[in-house]
Amino acid sequence: MSKKEPMINPWDISEKINYGKLMKEFGISPMKSLPKAFTKNILFRRGIVFAHRDFQRILEAIRDKKKFVMMTGLMPTGKFHLGHALVAQQMIFYQSLGAELYIAVADIEAYNARGQSIEESRKIAIEEYIKNYIALGLKPQNCEIYFQSDRSKDGKKSNAYYRLQNLLAKHSTFNEVKAIYGEISPGKMLSALLQGSDMLHPQLKEFEGAIPVVVPVGIDQDPHLRLARDISKRIKSPKFIQLSSTYHMFLPGLKGGKMSSSDPSSFIALTDSPKEVESKIKRYAFSGGKDTLEQHRKHGGNPDIDVSYQYLKMFFEPDDTKLKKIHDDYKSGKMLTSELKQILIKKMTAFLQEHQKKRKLAEKQIDKFIYK
Amino acid sequence: MSKKEPMINPWDISEKINYGKLMKEFGISPMKSLPKAFTKNILFRRGIVFAHRDFQRILEAIRDKKKFVMMTGLMPTGKFHLGHALVAQQMIFYQSLGAELYIAVADIEAYNARGQSIEESRKIAIEEYIKNYIALGLKPQNCEIYFQSDRSKDGKKSNAYYRLQNLLAKHSTFNEVKAIYGEISPGKMLSALLQGSDMLHPQLKEFEGAIPVVVPVGIDQDPHLRLARDISKRIKSPKFIQLSSTYHMFLPGLKGGKMSSSDPSSFIALTDSPKEVESKIKRYAFSGGKDTLEQHRKHGGNPDIDVSYQYLKMFFEPDDTKLKKIHDDYKSGKMLTSELKQILIKKMTAFLQEHQKKRKLAEKQIDKFIYK
Repeated sequence: MSKKEPMINPWDISEKINYGKLMKEFGISPMKSLPKAFTKNILFRRGIVFAHRDFQRILEAIRDKKKFVMMTGLMPTGKFHLGHALVAQQMIFYQSLGAELYIAVADIEAYNARGQSIEESRKIAIEEYIKNYIALGLKPQNCEIYFQSDRSKDGKKSNAYYRLQNLLAKHSTFNEVKAIYGEISPGKMLSALLQGSDMLHPQLKEFEGAIPVVVPVGIDQDPHLRLARDISKRIKSPKFIQLSSTYHMFLPGLKGGKMSSSDPSSFIALTDSPKEVESKIKRYAFSGGKDTLEQHRKHGGNPDIDVSYQYLKMFFEPDDTKLKKIHDDYKSGKMLTSELKQILIKKMTAFLQEHQKKRKLAEKQIDKFIYK
Repeated sequence: MSKKEPMINPWDISEKINYGKLMKEFGISPMKSLPKAFTKNILFRRGIVFAHRDFQRILEAIRDKKKFVMMTGLMPTGKFHLGHALVAQQMIFYQSLGAELYIAVADIEAYNARGQSIEESRKIAIEEYIKNYIALGLKPQNCEIYFQSDRSKDGKKSNAYYRLQNLLAKHSTFNEVKAIYGEISPGKMLSALLQGSDMLHPQLKEFEGAIPVVVPVGIDQDPHLRLARDISKRIKSPKFIQLSSTYHMFLPGLKGGKMSSSDPSSFIALTDSPKEVESKIKRYAFSGGKDTLEQHRKHGGNPDIDVSYQYLKMFFEPDDTKLKKIHDDYKSGKMLTSELKQILIKKMTAFLQEHQKKRKLAEKQIDKFIYK
């Protein structure tokens, strides 16, 4: 939900051990043994969701079949790409576990940060995000997609969300907001508090009442969680159950480094054609292979920094045995970069063709997710 | 609507000529010749409403029988006293001229500034303010009293008001807000912008659309007007008609100086008993009379600094001829302070007894003014 681009990527984490350092700095905990429902999901099984705060509360709710909320947001700018799909998969996974979903369209933030009109944000949210969510499997039941600029509950306008934004202000300080947002402006101040309201308002009596809420984020988003956690602790009425959060690794950009919405050669959009996909992977996908065929055969490639391998691991190859074989073959030098890329292209193309069909059908379902 | 107590009172203005200096500093204009509808009202005729910004627009709307809005707010703390009644009289006067009234209950501001709960603010707003407004003659037609914490329009929640607060943030700067509110806090920042939304939201398409709006204030409130005027000018969509404002003198406190809600000996509450009124006037009302009877008869009193005379002028003696006689008799020494005070006590007691009867009947009308 922030404008800051992630500073961390998987190989920074695996190679330079910033991973543990950041967790220690932020005071977040590594993800420990999880129930079966979670380990069935590759994001949890493969440690892509690697850390948490107060996640026990969510696990208990699931175990005890109690209600809980998963809250997340989308910034309605740019193309919907694989990085966004990684978050969407978590939404859909939590929905399958019985969570009530709250999904904020950050149109106020887009206005304040980029001057993008509320109307334009609505259009992008629907075309890029919501249609793709539906195609990925999001169901309308127990799912509230709302706009920051026009919060409704069951089709009726709600003021409780904005009242909370205004009341959070009293319990926060200028300095703690500044510590997160740096150079301060009224727009940033209001966005910060509205984001607090996004995370906390599900617990108001007008919504679910006090309830466990999990917010899945990238680790760079943790400061927002800390702000909301800190402010909410100071409020006596209503009493909030402390927010839970999980932290996922970033899907690396095609060329390695970050995936940037403003650079199409850094991402695969979920609307890219098979031709574009093939061309992008072949041209841009950062390789962990050696410079020459001879060297590669002799020394093998490095799957941990190879973007194609990472995409298979994080998204496209759910079978652990198959993935391990690819890993080992690539590492031993038996598999070449071109072969690895071909596997990814095939998998990705199949996925996207199927996805794009579903996306066309999603059009008709939009009304089940948002009010006109 | 601010927490700052007025720095100016009528004799500062008349004696030390700060009046003109302040107007010049703030760039506001003296009130010029007014149509008859206005000069019938003592507040306008006697220059108690003494200055304005862009008031011509309101005069034109009245002349052309076009719609316009009068917007004001109330801070739901303390007792409803004569100072508040002076503002209420302007509301009622504008209502009689055909204005649509928008009256904000500043419960969010009371929460942020004083930690007063939203429920407590609602209670005080009804008991102290709204009941007294009704008793003073406020009509439910074309009158919207709303709570900052729960903006409704025709009984339905509205988000447009909060959306505007959030959008105003983008077009304001930290420094201009700081210039008004001094030491900044998130609470003050949000209150400042919500106050901007109070003044500007009547012009949203969800309310009246672009329309002339007049905000009657004490001159110490002008910075809020300047902030709202400045921010609104920068917004391209929607286009706002520039706010109009009028500036009234402060009803002086009983002991001279300011009327303070926290000091009951500084004000007459509209629920004070005849006994309390008599005692307060006799004990506290600051006198412009001389120290001895002999000196008073010889040199005369000074009505311009005499609080009893000011109350007659600003509130209780609508007859100019009678007021002039009191003025002249007091100034010549013919009328003693005790006699002047007795005139005020009689007038005030008669007014309050009648008012308090009406206030009891007001109970039943509350529902016509606010939604449950």
